[in-house]
Amino acid sequence: MKAAVKVRAEPGGTEVMDVPMPTAGPNDALIKMDVVSICGTDMHIYNWDAWAQRKIKIPFIYGHEFCGTVVEVGSNVDYLSEGDCVSGECHVFCGHCHQCAMGNEHICENMVAFGVNTPGIFCEYQALPAQNLWKNDRKIPAEYLSLQDPLGNAVHTVFSAGNIAGKHVAVLGCGPIGLMAITIAKAAGAASVTAVGHTNEYRLGLAKKLGADRVLKKGDDIVKESAAMTDGVGFDAVYEITGNPHAVTDGLKMVRAGGTLALLGIFNDPVTINLTDDVVFKCVDIKGIYGRKVWDTWRITNGLLAAGTLDLDTIITHRFKFGDILKGFEAMASGNSGKVVLTF
Amino acid sequence: MKAAVKVRAEPGGTEVMDVPMPTAGPNDALIKMDVVSICGTDMHIYNWDAWAQRKIKIPFIYGHEFCGTVVEVGSNVDYLSEGDCVSGECHVFCGHCHQCAMGNEHICENMVAFGVNTPGIFCEYQALPAQNLWKNDRKIPAEYLSLQDPLGNAVHTVFSAGNIAGKHVAVLGCGPIGLMAITIAKAAGAASVTAVGHTNEYRLGLAKKLGADRVLKKGDDIVKESAAMTDGVGFDAVYEITGNPHAVTDGLKMVRAGGTLALLGIFNDPVTINLTDDVVFKCVDIKGIYGRKVWDTWRITNGLLAAGTLDLDTIITHRFKFGDILKGFEAMASGNSGKVVLTF
Amino acid sequence: MKAAVKVRAEPGGTEVMDVPMPTAGPNDALIKMDVVSICGTDMHIYNWDAWAQRKIKIPFIYGHEFCGTVVEVGSNVDYLSEGDCVSGECHVFCGHCHQCAMGNEHICENMVAFGVNTPGIFCEYQALPAQNLWKNDRKIPAEYLSLQDPLGNAVHTVFSAGNIAGKHVAVLGCGPIGLMAITIAKAAGAASVTAVGHTNEYRLGLAKKLGADRVLKKGDDIVKESAAMTDGVGFDAVYEITGNPHAVTDGLKMVRAGGTLALLGIFNDPVTINLTDDVVFKCVDIKGIYGRKVWDTWRITNGLLAAGTLDLDTIITHRFKFGDILKGFEAMASGNSGKVVLTF
Amino acid sequence: MKAAVKVRAEPGGTEVMDVPMPTAGPNDALIKMDVVSICGTDMHIYNWDAWAQRKIKIPFIYGHEFCGTVVEVGSNVDYLSEGDCVSGECHVFCGHCHQCAMGNEHICENMVAFGVNTPGIFCEYQALPAQNLWKNDRKIPAEYLSLQDPLGNAVHTVFSAGNIAGKHVAVLGCGPIGLMAITIAKAAGAASVTAVGHTNEYRLGLAKKLGADRVLKKGDDIVKESAAMTDGVGFDAVYEITGNPHAVTDGLKMVRAGGTLALLGIFNDPVTINLTDDVVFKCVDIKGIYGRKVWDTWRITNGLLAAGTLDLDTIITHRFKFGDILKGFEAMASGNSGKVVLTF
Repeated sequence: MKAAVKVRAEPGGTEVMDVPMPTAGPNDALIKMDVVSICGTDMHIYNWDAWAQRKIKIPFIYGHEFCGTVVEVGSNVDYLSEGDCVSGECHVFCGHCHQCAMGNEHICENMVAFGVNTPGIFCEYQALPAQNLWKNDRKIPAEYLSLQDPLGNAVHTVFSAGNIAGKHVAVLGCGPIGLMAITIAKAAGAASVTAVGHTNEYRLGLAKKLGADRVLKKGDDIVKESAAMTDGVGFDAVYEITGNPHAVTDGLKMVRAGGTLALLGIFNDPVTINLTDDVVFKCVDIKGIYGRKVWDTWRITNGLLAAGTLDLDTIITHRFKFGDILKGFEAMASGNSGKVVLTF
Repeated sequence: MKAAVKVRAEPGGTEVMDVPMPTAGPNDALIKMDVVSICGTDMHIYNWDAWAQRKIKIPFIYGHEFCGTVVEVGSNVDYLSEGDCVSGECHVFCGHCHQCAMGNEHICENMVAFGVNTPGIFCEYQALPAQNLWKNDRKIPAEYLSLQDPLGNAVHTVFSAGNIAGKHVAVLGCGPIGLMAITIAKAAGAASVTAVGHTNEYRLGLAKKLGADRVLKKGDDIVKESAAMTDGVGFDAVYEITGNPHAVTDGLKMVRAGGTLALLGIFNDPVTINLTDDVVFKCVDIKGIYGRKVWDTWRITNGLLAAGTLDLDTIITHRFKFGDILKGFEAMASGNSGKVVLTF
Repeated sequence: MKAAVKVRAEPGGTEVMDVPMPTAGPNDALIKMDVVSICGTDMHIYNWDAWAQRKIKIPFIYGHEFCGTVVEVGSNVDYLSEGDCVSGECHVFCGHCHQCAMGNEHICENMVAFGVNTPGIFCEYQALPAQNLWKNDRKIPAEYLSLQDPLGNAVHTVFSAGNIAGKHVAVLGCGPIGLMAITIAKAAGAASVTAVGHTNEYRLGLAKKLGADRVLKKGDDIVKESAAMTDGVGFDAVYEITGNPHAVTDGLKMVRAGGTLALLGIFNDPVTINLTDDVVFKCVDIKGIYGRKVWDTWRITNGLLAAGTLDLDTIITHRFKFGDILKGFEAMASGNSGKVVLTF
Repeated sequence: MKAAVKVRAEPGGTEVMDVPMPTAGPNDALIKMDVVSICGTDMHIYNWDAWAQRKIKIPFIYGHEFCGTVVEVGSNVDYLSEGDCVSGECHVFCGHCHQCAMGNEHICENMVAFGVNTPGIFCEYQALPAQNLWKNDRKIPAEYLSLQDPLGNAVHTVFSAGNIAGKHVAVLGCGPIGLMAITIAKAAGAASVTAVGHTNEYRLGLAKKLGADRVLKKGDDIVKESAAMTDGVGFDAVYEITGNPHAVTDGLKMVRAGGTLALLGIFNDPVTINLTDDVVFKCVDIKGIYGRKVWDTWRITNGLLAAGTLDLDTIITHRFKFGDILKGFEAMASGNSGKVVLTF
């Protein structure tokens, strides 16, 4: 079968090539991919940055966002059938550690991620742990279903602040997950959504198209403009989806006293915070967010997809056949893209 | 000044007549009404039912939904100014009982309601306790602002189930507040909204126009149809806004195990419930709802109005000049109405 | 091996007899019982009431409360070892239905209960699904560990009202689970605990011994006395653990506006409630409670056991050797008991 | 009347002297002090540190913790009476800003604090805004009632993590509020309480006396010892009550994934945090805590006092007559004290 394989320890270094078919173990299902999509994590591997050099053992099939069809079911699995349309939670949880026992499978103490620690889904078929598969509703387009992993990140982040209907929120970062947070917040009835991007006009344009009530960028007086959006009160919730330390500093100024700053971005270095003025005196709640709740977040994500109010057509900016996945990586690398999806 | 006064202890029995101007005490503000609207409570008074006969002392100026302008401010009041655009929370709270101290002013132990216990706002001017006034944003149309009291009921009810984005909900009752619950649930990103009405085609039609995903009525197999809407799981939240005991029985069958049944409707008689099967074994959460949280609910309501996603134009079906308020009562009494608003 | 078997379809009808050793399947563990205890559910089976006649197929080994030692582990199970000290969650969940996926295994759509639907643990050895076993901390006495199932019921009920430290609560019912709720509420810092029993002086005495601040019984003016305990405000939380309709009616009068009435008791008949005055106008939250959260409740229960502040020595009133289990049933049937534990 | 007045801009600089009686305005009550106590804030003023030099205008009567008797009531106040026993919330809230409207009076946008911005209660009589007074239950000892302000800080901090019954918690800091957090956590049923102090053996000794399950100090391998207390899982909640940046760093290592780090301490400088590893990947919730919720926290505090399970006798280490308040300051300054109370 065909697979996109990281074959060389260098930027790019990926080839679409023939590899052996995977075999499903007794607790697995074998899946034929229908749509896969490219995540920021995949770009780390493609770009071969420091993180990827530490984590990835080549040759390696990467990718973890997909919508596929079950073609074989392991002998211990009685809750999936051939023909089921599925997507997958990339964080493979042990099911028995303290965190799993408490319903926090997304922070399992023995976590393994397919597409990072084990082979991923940039290929025609893959065998994955059946427990990590989510049965899809075929009424929803397959390319949307392939996005449930990053959509889940955004859903997890946005609703970490509770119900946001009627609340003023800000999204820091206009990459794919930031854009998803914008459309989710609009669909969930936010009083207003302020988006803060960097300098990429393409992505700022997508934020506007998604209905962000105000789009700010580097060079704007972000804190002052934000106050104006909220009658000087500050945002009920600010979502940090950049990994830029300045976004944390800004975010703490933008959020109202008693509000929530949710952190999904990954920071290369420690961040210095004025805890006294910006957290303690303001009673701010800073929430670290990782992955998605299994399966709580998936269900909310599905409900939003079922409602049909997320504008994913604006976010999916590029579509290629799987054989052209290298073009997809290039589109992502250019910065002038939302999500890139690949069909078989 | 002109006022609509219940002058006779009989159905109807209301006249628009000249009455003396009210006087603002030191803790009050005097308000010139811009828009007022008719509530179901007002219809009890108009119809002179058993409840009204017990509660209302004639002659009486009724009404409590309004948007008006402050024209005079009491000497103890430093947080309002002449010219402020305001609406009012009809439940006058004492501010010092246990419930008020705990932030539950809506269930104040010493509650008095203007328009029921003290004179209301079906008149050109009224003096009201300044603490019960909410400063409006003039960017929002005055007729919407007049609806914040019943909208607040609906907001309080809908979000008593927490965040409903991506969740399946049902609204039992298609009267004005039920209709508001429908548009709120849609605006807040519900996966689906199922509306259940009685037999009034006019109101069932409004429910459809508001975007209810499924509209059921008397005679339908409501429980079965509801299961179909939710893959047999049941609704995450069911909102009872009828006061009909059958709606409680149905609601408990419609809600999923672990879901919420919120009760806003008022029942004339005690209701018999199969607690064992429908509440205990199902781990259902039944929440009694009264009024609106002061001012939490008002702020969320304002945020929803600011977002501009509530379809109140469909819900406001009749507009009259205040002098024609009797036509407004008749429109409400016909059942073939949503909300009726009156301008000055 | 020895087992207590319901052999005759009649009250009593139980014999301790030799039966074949059970066999552990690939997903099971075989457990040697160290301590077992008698639940109210077991008494239904012993007494052969209408429920038992419908549910139980004789001959049948009943019982579900235990502390035991793993002596054999199924081939698919890698998270348990021989020698582990375990107790068990009696509700065997499928792990894949909607409720299980959402972390609500306690209301699994495909629930099976050992000791009711499949053979129980009133025997020397039993094979149970490994996923339903909880690894115990051997520092805690085995007879306490055997009580985690009913303790979990009480923990689930008490904390369904959230944090009760500094809050006034009432426990309706002084049977074993009611008594557990009393000691839990005391250990969790309740401002006061009011216990309401029936007429059984033995159990009322146990309630007092556990430190209930006020013990009321049939014939007392329960609603009035309760108001006195709370300065007229009412209880923040009332726990219904009797299944008596009057307790619901009383409970709704006892609870403060905005408070919680949790229902764990099972009612033989539908219950008639004044929803308008007692639920809607009071904004009361009625919560149906079933079983225990898996494993959230177990962990809190273990934490309370670790703290050493639960007075289980008062609640365990009878201890027998397993061979004398019929004496245990008789002690429970007399009403003059707390929990009855049996050792091997 | 006698008052303790900061008369000189220097360390100490305080004299007990005769000053004019204060006068109660129409919204005030005049209070005769029965017991007052010394807060850490008072020590900043006494020591005349940088903060005090910026904030305090001499001559100044300081202090804000008290239990007193109402001797005169302002003309606008109808909810207090002469003879009422009261304590006071030192944060005077406006009642009308956004935060006050939302029930967050403790972070009022127009906050003024008596004892800092306006005259305090180190004197025989003081006039205070009636809205800021809490009616006490005389059954509770007056010296405990005087401690409700700092106890409220500790209650607010401890329960910011929700219900902690059965949970493992750590308290960083063994000053008076840290000690209060220890006794509160024990009274609320924590599975275990680990206290971390600095080097002051006196205060470490108080922590032990209060029942802390483990007391660690500077030089111990705090993170490793903490893991041992929690089977390697980490604490469900860690309370930072020192203002030491190292405590934040340690706290983030000590807390379990998905747990809560509450920050009550005030930091002199910005703090550098490894957000990626210690917050984002761990899904940690960092909560800034300021003051106490008005009046929610007060009520819980009262409930805990009513239960009688807080060990305040260990925490109150020094008692003086008010005339000897300088001895009280010296006791506090020595570090070898818990709380210091002064009677009249």
